[in-house]
Parts: sequence; structure tokens; C-alpha cells
Amino acid sequence: MNHKVIVILLAAVITGGICLAQTDRPAIKEDFKPSTLNQPGQEYPQVNSQGYARFRIVAPQAQSVSVSLGGRGGTSLTKAEDGFWIGTTAGPLDEGFHYYHLTIDGGTFNDPGTLNFYGSTRWESGIEVPAHDQDFYALKGVPHGRVQQILFPSKSTSTSRRAFVYTPPDYDKDLTKRYPVLYLQHGWGEDETAWSNQGRVNLIMDNLIAEGKTKPFLIVMTYGMTNEIRFGGLRNFDIGPFQTVLVDELIPYIDANFRTLSDQPNRAMAGLSMGGMETRTITLKNLDKFSHIGLLSGGSISPEDVNDTPGFKEKVKLVFVSYGSRELENRRGGGRGPFGGDPKANADALKQAGINSVFYVSADTAHEFQSWRRSIYQFAPLLFKD
Amino acid sequence: MNHKVIVILLAAVITGGICLAQTDRPAIKEDFKPSTLNQPGQEYPQVNSQGYARFRIVAPQAQSVSVSLGGRGGTSLTKAEDGFWIGTTAGPLDEGFHYYHLTIDGGTFNDPGTLNFYGSTRWESGIEVPAHDQDFYALKGVPHGRVQQILFPSKSTSTSRRAFVYTPPDYDKDLTKRYPVLYLQHGWGEDETAWSNQGRVNLIMDNLIAEGKTKPFLIVMTYGMTNEIRFGGLRNFDIGPFQTVLVDELIPYIDANFRTLSDQPNRAMAGLSMGGMETRTITLKNLDKFSHIGLLSGGSISPEDVNDTPGFKEKVKLVFVSYGSRELENRRGGGRGPFGGDPKANADALKQAGINSVFYVSADTAHEFQSWRRSIYQFAPLLFKD
Repeated sequence: MNHKVIVILLAAVITGGICLAQTDRPAIKEDFKPSTLNQPGQEYPQVNSQGYARFRIVAPQAQSVSVSLGGRGGTSLTKAEDGFWIGTTAGPLDEGFHYYHLTIDGGTFNDPGTLNFYGSTRWESGIEVPAHDQDFYALKGVPHGRVQQILFPSKSTSTSRRAFVYTPPDYDKDLTKRYPVLYLQHGWGEDETAWSNQGRVNLIMDNLIAEGKTKPFLIVMTYGMTNEIRFGGLRNFDIGPFQTVLVDELIPYIDANFRTLSDQPNRAMAGLSMGGMETRTITLKNLDKFSHIGLLSGGSISPEDVNDTPGFKEKVKLVFVSYGSRELENRRGGGRGPFGGDPKANADALKQAGINSVFYVSADTAHEFQSWRRSIYQFAPLLFKD
Repeated sequence: MNHKVIVILLAAVITGGICLAQTDRPAIKEDFKPSTLNQPGQEYPQVNSQGYARFRIVAPQAQSVSVSLGGRGGTSLTKAEDGFWIGTTAGPLDEGFHYYHLTIDGGTFNDPGTLNFYGSTRWESGIEVPAHDQDFYALKGVPHGRVQQILFPSKSTSTSRRAFVYTPPDYDKDLTKRYPVLYLQHGWGEDETAWSNQGRVNLIMDNLIAEGKTKPFLIVMTYGMTNEIRFGGLRNFDIGPFQTVLVDELIPYIDANFRTLSDQPNRAMAGLSMGGMETRTITLKNLDKFSHIGLLSGGSISPEDVNDTPGFKEKVKLVFVSYGSRELENRRGGGRGPFGGDPKANADALKQAGINSVFYVSADTAHEFQSWRRSIYQFAPLLFKD
């Protein structure tokens, strides 16, 4: 995130130009406020109007305390005279949500000041840097939908599995109305809580619906890491077990227990990162079930994919692909970047072929939730158009 | 919790009888298993068949690591050769759920091995000691109700407030059916997540309903610490702000947005600890709205209360009071014990006066969630009898 700052600092050090570093980096404004994700009554961590984050940890006898945010090596805190460990990131953080953790004397712990969010296969600390466009995911005085926790039977995994279902504000008003459904997946190391907690997808939908910008629809979110990849990598990923849970167990349960429109034109699937990979694989294999596809920082669909999938042009009503701009910069800079080919080129080629193909780039954000909040805000209004 | 063990140990030390201590304390069985509340893939903390808990923390450069469970001073961990801090409680813990935290080099942190639960006005670590009667709150292959997160408008606090609503398994099957409602409150320092997360009240209801032991009803849970007591004590408690939210805002919202039976005979209120105090105060002032009252480790209703409340005998269909047995032991031993008079004597006096008064004691549990899980299991079947 803070590559530029690090590069400037390194350049300054190498050329002996400490003054250069001092003039290039703006003065840190002392207008720090508690992060909105802090636990009740907690003053730290704080964020200032420039996006710098400041941390304060109580551990008077500790030897070293650092925070995983704020550049490649994180931010080392310094013990003040009052026994508190305190430190500020070397540069501003990107707008939006960031996971982080503390390293205290060589162990990994959460910051007791903040709420926790499931990522990296563990509950991590979270911090929120106010964004210029935060209004679209703010809690406002509009009618609110619900986030319903359901436990659905899964024969293939011999248990009751959890999912969350967003139902729009009018769902319990007109009991004869039926709704389209979006199945929405989290990324690697996250779980079915991510899209509501980190993504605020329920508030995004409430706000879009209140402004008349999207059709109301249900969103179903369940756990997508059903096999061995859980604590390994993505290399040996087998879509089979999750596809069985989603397509053979969850979808029929949702259609039987919620007032859905259960035909193909009214069912969409989207996902972020690994969830995009799952979406791509499952939808291409099940075009009799899904008509709208969203890949958020999770690959793209190429002309070859279209050619290899009989009926694609007739069945698919939308292919939405998005990335954070920093992910594309990484690619140009020789970094990992998007997988599965150039997403913009693929999106353009699909459009040329007459497919409803939309490519969206979130400005100045990385492989993080601010990219995905913005992406879902762009994606939702395009769904289930008559 | 482990007073007995401590007393035995102290006696042994005082009389110089180390052998006594060794013979009086049973050998610790090496059948430790990961707590069911551990984060995915985490091996520690562990619990053995006797209820001893064992902790293991990675913090190789730390000076001291201790756990707040396992007797008055908690459990000090010892650094092993591999750099892990490890330790076992001095005695067995009571059955059920316990909050705890770590103290690392003088700072308070959560155990990265476990899930977190909101208590003591912060997200704390949790551990589960398997109970002989854990079947009644187990996740089983029965039809499951939902836990619905709602955001309801609150003029008095100028915001949208969160509540969770348990709806029984048949709620979305017969869309003409209407249901009674129980308003259920958490304790001091907890929040609206406590009854589902720590209390497993949704699973208790699912299981009771599956066995035909209770009428299906809705349970509404919201945050009860709306005033200055949040980070102070209970001394200056003013019921006003919360009563306004509950009675004037939440109840009308629930009745307008869920299929409820909204008359007095079909509305109950209960709470644990501080939530019992709130229940007692609010119901006595609003007997036109509530017919069933549950106080769980949260005081009792005296004959004087009945005399001071016009219409009590006609309007109140049930007064349920419960405690964990260790809370009553504490009282006898000169400890704090139940507040507001002897709960058993009060319950007996109400019964004598012809009121449907039920007193329940949870065996071998303290002011903790196992008492309240058992209490709600006893309470639910008594509600809304025709």
C-alpha cells in the first residue's frame, strides 16, 4: 500500500537526502479520531484526515510491539514513559477497511481496541480509514433489510451449515412478492460473515434500494472453503465439494424456504478473489442455473471461455469484472496482478462479441474490501433488469 | 469457581501436608481435546474430561503470560523449551461457557486460539467445558429457526439500533400464522449477541420445538445498556432510556414487521443478571404489555412488589426466577449472592398467594451462561400456555 512512501524514503536514504524525505512527506495532521470499528469506549486505534493510523497498546513489560499495517515491515511501536506502546504508520493508508494484527514479543495477537473480522483463516483486528465516498455504505435513516442467519442441512458434509441471507426492506411487507437471488462469496481465509461485517453489503443494498437505484433482491452468503485448501494454498483447489453444497443443497433450500424467483434469469453469482474463482468455475458449469456473473478481483472470462461453453451468449445476461486500481498497477509493475489473463482485454473482447460485459476499476484501492464495496455498489444496479 | 480446590491447597500448605494435597486432588487425565469454541484449526485451548483447561500461547520473548481462568489469581503459564507458554488450571472448571482473557507482560489480550464473545464491555475469549447435559443446546439435525438481524429506527437515541429476532422453524412455512414474543435481555457488559452466541438460545428453542416441548414463539434481543452505566457500575442505573427504546420503539416495530400476537397475554420479558433487573422494573411498570416474567440470576419479585402493583395477580401469568446453585452458596457463605431478598422465599410467598411462581436452581453452576442456558430451557415450555 505504501510502496511510494517507502520508495521515496529509500531514495532519500540512498542519496543522503534526509531533507528530501522531509519535504516530500506532508506533515502529519494532529486530527486523529478513534476508528469507527473500535470496541465500545476504546480511544485507539485512531485515524487522521490524511489516512495515517496511530496505535496505542498497553503491555508495560513487553520487549517489542509492532502492528502489521503501514508498509512492508508494518509499524514498530515505541514504549512511552507512561508504559504505553505507541506508533503511527509511516504513510497514509488507503481508504476503507484493513485487516491487521499485533506482534507482541514474537506472538500474534489482536488489538484489544478494535472489533475483529474473520480473514486469513482467523479473527483479525480491523481498522476503517474514512473514505471520500463512504456515504454509499453508511448506516442511514432509510428502511433497513435484514441479515438472517440460517442453518441448512448438508448431506454431503453431514452437518447443518450456516448461511446469511439479506432480505430487502419490503420482504416482510408484501407476503406474495417473490425475489431474484444473488449468491455472493467471500475470499480465501474469510467466511460467510465477511460481506456483511467488512463489506457492509446490507447497508449498501438498503441505500441503493432507498434511492431506487436497484431492484430489491436476496443475497445469500455461505462458507466457500469446504475442502483441504482451508489451511493450505489455492494450488490444489477442488471446486467439487463446494459446488455440491451450493448448487445441490443451498440453492434448493433457499428456493424452498424463501420467497424466491427460482428460474435461471433470476439467479446470479458473484465473489471476491477466491470467491470470484469459484463463481467463474461454478457458473460456467451451471449456466442452466445462473444468468448473471460477477468476478471481483477474481479473474475474468475470456473469449475462449465463451467459445468453450455452449449456450453462453444466449444464457448469460451480464459478466461484471472489477479490480482495485492498485492491483492493475501491480501487474504493470511486474507484480502478481489479476490472474487468468488481462481482465480489461477480456471484458472488451466479450463486449465486441455482443455480450453484456462491464469492467470496473476502483480508484486508488488494492486487493481489499473498499474495492469490493465499490464493486458491489456498481454491480447490484445491473442485476435482474427486465 | 474453584474455591474448594484453593481451600484444600491452602490447608495443605498451612499444615505442611503436601501429601494431603496430592491425595485430595485427583490425577489430571491426559485426555485433553480442543475446546469446541476454538477458531478453525486451532489446537488450544483444550479441556479434559474432568473439566481442567490447558492453554498454550506463542510469545517467545514475553516475560510473563497468564490466563484469567482457574481460580482467584488465574493460571500462570510457564515457558517451555520450544518457546510456547503452557499451563493447566489448578482445578476443574464448572461445566459450560466461561469468558477469559490473557495477561501478557502486563497487557490484556485475547487468546488467538479461540472465538470471542462480548462480555465485560469488551470482546473476550471464550472456552466451553462439555456439560453432562449439553445435548439440549447441541446443534442437531432438526429443523432450524433463524436469527434475524434487524436495524430498527430509534428516535429517542437518534439512530438505527440493532436487534436479533429468533424466528422458529415454521415461521416461513405458514404465512398466515402469528406468534407470541419473548423479549430477552443480556447481562451487564454484554450485548444483543450474547443470548445467541454464548447462550445458544436459538438451538435450545430448535431442540425444544422439535421435541414438542414448547410452543413456538419469537425471541427479540437488543442492547440494554443505553445510558451512562456502560462503563460505570450499576449504582446510577436509570431504566428510563432503555424502557423508551424497548417499549415505545422496539415493540411497535416488531409488531409492525413480524407476524406477532401483539396482545398482553402473548408478550413476555426475561433477562439475566442486569437484564433481570431491567425486566423486573419494566414489567412491573407495564403490566398492560407483559404477562410472563423471567428473572435469571437477576433478583426476584417479593409479596410487597405484588401488593404495590395494582392488577398484578390478574395480569401476570408466570413469574419464573432462577439462579445457579453456586450463587446461592455464595450467599450462605456470606458472599454477594442474589440481590433483592431471598429469591426462594419470595417465590414461595408468591405461590402461596396464588400466583404461578416457579423457582429453578441450576446445579453446580455460578453466575455464568450454563445457568442461563438451563434456565431458558426450563422457562420456555412454561410460556404462553393456553
